[in-house]
Amino acid sequence: MSASKRTSPLPLNERFASRAQYFAPSPIRAVFEMEMNPDVISLAGGNPELTHLPWEEITRISNEVVTQHGLSAFQYGTTVGQPELIDEIQKIMALEGIESVPEDILVTSGSQMSLDLVAKLFLNPGDTVLAAAPSYSGALNVFAGMQAHVAQLEGDDEGITIDVIEAAIAHAQATGSDIKLLYVVPNFANPSGVVMSYRRRMDIVKLCREHDIIIVEDNPYGLINFGVDLPPALRTLDPDNVIYLGSLSKIFAPGIRIGWTDAPAMVHASLVPAAEASAICPSPLSQSIAAKYLREVDWHSVLAANVDMYHRRAQALDAALQEYLPAGCKWVTPTGAFFIWVELPENIDASSGLLDEAMDEGILYIPGTAFFLDGRGHNALRLSYSQADEDTLREAARRLGALLHRANRVIDL
Amino acid sequence: MSASKRTSPLPLNERFASRAQYFAPSPIRAVFEMEMNPDVISLAGGNPELTHLPWEEITRISNEVVTQHGLSAFQYGTTVGQPELIDEIQKIMALEGIESVPEDILVTSGSQMSLDLVAKLFLNPGDTVLAAAPSYSGALNVFAGMQAHVAQLEGDDEGITIDVIEAAIAHAQATGSDIKLLYVVPNFANPSGVVMSYRRRMDIVKLCREHDIIIVEDNPYGLINFGVDLPPALRTLDPDNVIYLGSLSKIFAPGIRIGWTDAPAMVHASLVPAAEASAICPSPLSQSIAAKYLREVDWHSVLAANVDMYHRRAQALDAALQEYLPAGCKWVTPTGAFFIWVELPENIDASSGLLDEAMDEGILYIPGTAFFLDGRGHNALRLSYSQADEDTLREAARRLGALLHRANRVIDL
Repeated sequence: MSASKRTSPLPLNERFASRAQYFAPSPIRAVFEMEMNPDVISLAGGNPELTHLPWEEITRISNEVVTQHGLSAFQYGTTVGQPELIDEIQKIMALEGIESVPEDILVTSGSQMSLDLVAKLFLNPGDTVLAAAPSYSGALNVFAGMQAHVAQLEGDDEGITIDVIEAAIAHAQATGSDIKLLYVVPNFANPSGVVMSYRRRMDIVKLCREHDIIIVEDNPYGLINFGVDLPPALRTLDPDNVIYLGSLSKIFAPGIRIGWTDAPAMVHASLVPAAEASAICPSPLSQSIAAKYLREVDWHSVLAANVDMYHRRAQALDAALQEYLPAGCKWVTPTGAFFIWVELPENIDASSGLLDEAMDEGILYIPGTAFFLDGRGHNALRLSYSQADEDTLREAARRLGALLHRANRVIDL
Repeated sequence: MSASKRTSPLPLNERFASRAQYFAPSPIRAVFEMEMNPDVISLAGGNPELTHLPWEEITRISNEVVTQHGLSAFQYGTTVGQPELIDEIQKIMALEGIESVPEDILVTSGSQMSLDLVAKLFLNPGDTVLAAAPSYSGALNVFAGMQAHVAQLEGDDEGITIDVIEAAIAHAQATGSDIKLLYVVPNFANPSGVVMSYRRRMDIVKLCREHDIIIVEDNPYGLINFGVDLPPALRTLDPDNVIYLGSLSKIFAPGIRIGWTDAPAMVHASLVPAAEASAICPSPLSQSIAAKYLREVDWHSVLAANVDMYHRRAQALDAALQEYLPAGCKWVTPTGAFFIWVELPENIDASSGLLDEAMDEGILYIPGTAFFLDGRGHNALRLSYSQADEDTLREAARRLGALLHRANRVIDL
């Protein structure tokens, strides 16, 4: 035995891997914890409204899954997922114009897991990922956790611009970093709400193909559409170079944790063993419920009614912000999804004091800094209108407006 | 734009990260796929018997979860898991003598995910993990996927021996590799069935603490006990240096995908954000069903009856192997869990030709090579008795015996 005996071990965090520096409690966790408080008006999470789901049908379906298929729904399943569910997933993608083959689809325990698998498969430490500024924080955390460099690129109202991508490519070449992935939410991006134009999609697909950059197309919100004629999915524009991520979280329910990847065969072949090592299989119980819901319920009508409701909420929040927010605040009226991205006057910092005051006033939002890895976003915030009714959204906007007016005055003094 | 334009991108697998070499389809996948064939007698998977679960109660519970708690069960939840479920998890651990505090527990989407999170948190490429020879293949795959070196150490009938651990420590020191983790299934190890003795546990805890090696104690089978007086969990012997992994897969049902970690505070604090980045949260629907099942059903009696059944099946398979297997085959009569690990005469290879012949004969097993990363295990195989009744197990043993007699004769010619 070793001569050097310890009575107490090293603090365990001194034994962590290098990547563990990215596994720090996020500042927005406190916001999400506060969401559980029913007295608080939350404009924080991207939670779908579940009140109007057809609960009688869902009860019947859950019942039938347990009584008729319990022995398989409660047992281990295959890693790729149930054929019945994959069939329904293909129909969902077809609604957005994507022709798929079942062999390319892998069911996952939600889109976050899809992102984790793609990041594991492609990213060595020091590789570069291109993403929008701002981007969905859950994706940024996954890429950072694989010790990739995330270059967050500015865009216009059509998406990330070509010139900044070209500049990022030149920069990566100069610094010797390999750009592996471009991450994009082309439809109603979280948090900015931007829809990428057809021309921009074509240009990005071409540029990425020329530079061997694989595109990760994350599309949880494509069907939460207030009436926009969406351009084709990137997956259809270059099927050999795009990995598509889909989710049932926004169009059905997040609590079952079901998402999927639709990826070129060569990628799919390695995503499957990666998924097996991560989680063995997506929950067969969840898969059975989801497949039956999608097959037996008129979910298109349920979703259409919910989308109308989200649209009315978006309009109500938009109008209330116009009424209550001080001059110098900028945002774009949403055309789909759940969010309004508000840019504040330069001198207002939404990430610390203002956030505390908002919580004291009983309202929650996500500070803009959560959508950047590089410290940008202080004078921005994301408001979600998916979970509150129109009166509540007005009241939240009123309280937020009062705080912002006060912050403006304090700074002007 | 770059001067070098391509019309077709590089094959995408040339863009994979270094770790992707470990995301190859495993040879045992073919075995698991064949399990779906109802004409085949499977002694392959570690699937629990679900036939005798109280399905009426489970139907009632699922119903109540959907009708009374649907809005939360189908919504996003917290990353750590529901307090009601954590409470029941603590009671399960208490049955095995582990005192826990709720703050140390993280609910996961099954033990495989727990392993993935622990591997992510601790393992840099080139680090060493110590494990038994043989070990659960799902754990080996996770460690290899993090590009760790896995040293699989021989044991005796009390577990991994101290002298081989000391030799592995000396070897790692000589080669400059940092031994981060020791992975152990102390109760009814998969696949060997070994129960680690009290003395061995104490010695290993002491040795690991001296060398700053964190112990990962994986215990899915502790309650599938045919009457052994189990020594205390390693987590109780050195709470500051042991990460405990638990699972509902074997004592309730795997299809809900619920496991957990019980880890020292400093580790728990970083496992939570790692879990959030991997999967956001374990399925609230599954958690609600599990919590209600554990709280409202007399699951101890259900499990006790199932364990009796597994015991009878173990005895039946053991007796049939004694009757049918040729001389030179060695195994230990199981004292718990689902498996018999059979060592064959040196000259028989269970991993290729024999496996094909077995599949032709309509029986499935897992070849011993699946439980090693270094090519060992050719003359061994794992038989599971959890899924087949006693007559079927006898018939499977008869067919396997015939194959092995024939293989012996062919080699002797």
